[in-house]
Amino acid sequence: MPRDGTKTRQRILDAAYTLFHRSGYRRVGVDEIAAGANVTKRTLYSHYPSKDALLAECLRSQAALAADGFKSWGQRLPASRDALVDALFDALSKWSATPRWAGSGFTRVAVELTDLPGHPARAIARRHKAMLEDYLTELLQRAGVEPPRERARQLWIVMEGAMLMALICGDRSYIASAQRAARMLLSASEPSAPAKSRLRC
Amino acid sequence: MPRDGTKTRQRILDAAYTLFHRSGYRRVGVDEIAAGANVTKRTLYSHYPSKDALLAECLRSQAALAADGFKSWGQRLPASRDALVDALFDALSKWSATPRWAGSGFTRVAVELTDLPGHPARAIARRHKAMLEDYLTELLQRAGVEPPRERARQLWIVMEGAMLMALICGDRSYIASAQRAARMLLSASEPSAPAKSRLRC
Repeated sequence: MPRDGTKTRQRILDAAYTLFHRSGYRRVGVDEIAAGANVTKRTLYSHYPSKDALLAECLRSQAALAADGFKSWGQRLPASRDALVDALFDALSKWSATPRWAGSGFTRVAVELTDLPGHPARAIARRHKAMLEDYLTELLQRAGVEPPRERARQLWIVMEGAMLMALICGDRSYIASAQRAARMLLSASEPSAPAKSRLRC
Repeated sequence: MPRDGTKTRQRILDAAYTLFHRSGYRRVGVDEIAAGANVTKRTLYSHYPSKDALLAECLRSQAALAADGFKSWGQRLPASRDALVDALFDALSKWSATPRWAGSGFTRVAVELTDLPGHPARAIARRHKAMLEDYLTELLQRAGVEPPRERARQLWIVMEGAMLMALICGDRSYIASAQRAARMLLSASEPSAPAKSRLRC
């Protein structure tokens, strides 16, 4: 495909992402996305056969970006347990303070499509969350938290719950309560490895 | 209004609730609700001026039912800390195993309308969650958990997070992990009152 085609394809993807993230999947129409990308509907359909295909591509590209971002951020994190929790929640707290913050796009799509468990977007969201949980398990293992998989899962539950309540109630103090809960949960672990070792997993 | 009018009004409300709960607010149209209630659109509009008004009425009536249900269930709960946590999560676990379980309708509406913080449905969802959290605070206080408000908030975060992850991943084992986390969080409290006293708040 010529260079222009690649650029157009990306422009459509960017417009779709912005609109889906702002207003949700179902309310946004293909007309609106085409207008946002400044292309005709015919051009849009020459790149993406359907709104479903466009959503799936948006999520795939976001999942790859988010995974890379989380992993390169994770590599720079301190290996100590409390510092790790604080770094996670500080990042969450800063993110939630950005204008028009709307939480995790993957969570929102999955909730919006609750009645369609077989939708491709649901599978992408599920795989993305599983990947993040696996990576958190590695980080906890590195910090000597035991058992790392169970604690990663519980930490993830607390983070998702905090984002959700902050969003529903418009009250960011849920994130601070969740941070204190996370510290309590991890301090209850019995480390089997030295808490400050820097194991590479 | 004659008796038939009241019945029709309720039938419209029931049909709207079923459809909103199944497919979300935005995808369901007034035509579909009218068909579900077996009334004309004209009749529907004589009872409810808009889909927004119908959604608000649905949520108000559900909030009242849910609050009554939770409170009368709560009165029969054991006052001991661990038994309370187990009763809460057993109820969550049973609920999540029902066919086509879709989590909390209030959570889903709030997520679906993330970009509209001023929507009446958002205010109803927010008030409902606050009411449940207040009541959970009373239950924890009765069980001698300290500090009850902070622990109720953390317990609520854990329950919402568990429902969300169970829903996104189609994996109910998140509820069991959350239950273990909740027991750990509450066992970290330092009771200022005898843990087994049956104080009336």
